[in-house]
Amino acid sequence: MERILATARASFAEHGFAGTSMRAVALEAEVDPRLVAYYFRDKNTLLDACLQPPDGYLERVDQVVHGPMRTRGSAMVRNMLTYWEDPQTSSILRGIVLTAAHDDVARERLTAIYRTAMIGAVADGLDDQQRLLRAGLAAAVIIGLCMTRYVYELEPLAGLDIDTVVKLVGPTVQRCLSGRLPT
Amino acid sequence: MERILATARASFAEHGFAGTSMRAVALEAEVDPRLVAYYFRDKNTLLDACLQPPDGYLERVDQVVHGPMRTRGSAMVRNMLTYWEDPQTSSILRGIVLTAAHDDVARERLTAIYRTAMIGAVADGLDDQQRLLRAGLAAAVIIGLCMTRYVYELEPLAGLDIDTVVKLVGPTVQRCLSGRLPT
Repeated sequence: MERILATARASFAEHGFAGTSMRAVALEAEVDPRLVAYYFRDKNTLLDACLQPPDGYLERVDQVVHGPMRTRGSAMVRNMLTYWEDPQTSSILRGIVLTAAHDDVARERLTAIYRTAMIGAVADGLDDQQRLLRAGLAAAVIIGLCMTRYVYELEPLAGLDIDTVVKLVGPTVQRCLSGRLPT
Repeated sequence: MERILATARASFAEHGFAGTSMRAVALEAEVDPRLVAYYFRDKNTLLDACLQPPDGYLERVDQVVHGPMRTRGSAMVRNMLTYWEDPQTSSILRGIVLTAAHDDVARERLTAIYRTAMIGAVADGLDDQQRLLRAGLAAAVIIGLCMTRYVYELEPLAGLDIDTVVKLVGPTVQRCLSGRLPT
């Protein structure tokens, strides 16, 4: 089942929803197509399973975004990098980020994750639009970092150790969360 | 020819190099397949044409990154947003950014653009590794902004006018270029 999911994830990310078939996934994962149909019924169900964040991911993000405000930006960057460093979880996140670029269901899923996970990172005292805007700015920085470092593998950013990246990008995310925004 | 390119761009972005055929592009663009072969010879040539930045783009970026340092970050953000707002040029940039996510040729092309275009934005006085690192951090912020605003269409960021976005994100890019970096 993990092999089916990994294959399907790569296919959705690369070929989109329309370019992915249950049959082709089965062939590539070297399993009987009936097994794919048994586990996942149809292509929508399969996509949905592929877009599930890694186990415990949302809970972990929730913990991090409720940590001390002073270091929250760095903690968020470190947490995201940790998930992207691990091949098991990075393939899932990569699948979500890339599939969401050309598939509406995936895009809505990504947006929902961001709305629930990120808005909690911003101080309570602000109104919802301000909080969403700040969360969006922080998300933009984090997504850009992951694209540049893990998807495009841009050097020297891709080759730095996690601690250095956290030091470099943490304060930027922190400013989005709790710094002064231009009016 | 523009229709062939637009169709091919969308196909490379969505289905990758392997999932794109000259024949399918011809069919979808509603032109004779021989015409595609006449203009572009083979799939590599077609991809290469698709990955060409918009006319004048590199010259424009070169101008912007050599503008006054004090406002360079904002000028870079404004320039990028302007290209992404125009449907004609945004489809090209979108194609490059998304194709580069799963195709090595496109990724190298994107990296080359970034190396030549972005490194000029960083002050001369620093050594090359420092300049590349700063350019990479600035690129990460700008790519993240474009993904969030134009590809994922995350609100409220997607709905803000350009001036507001420049005010919000310009200073962040500026800090990457000329601010103090943590050591």
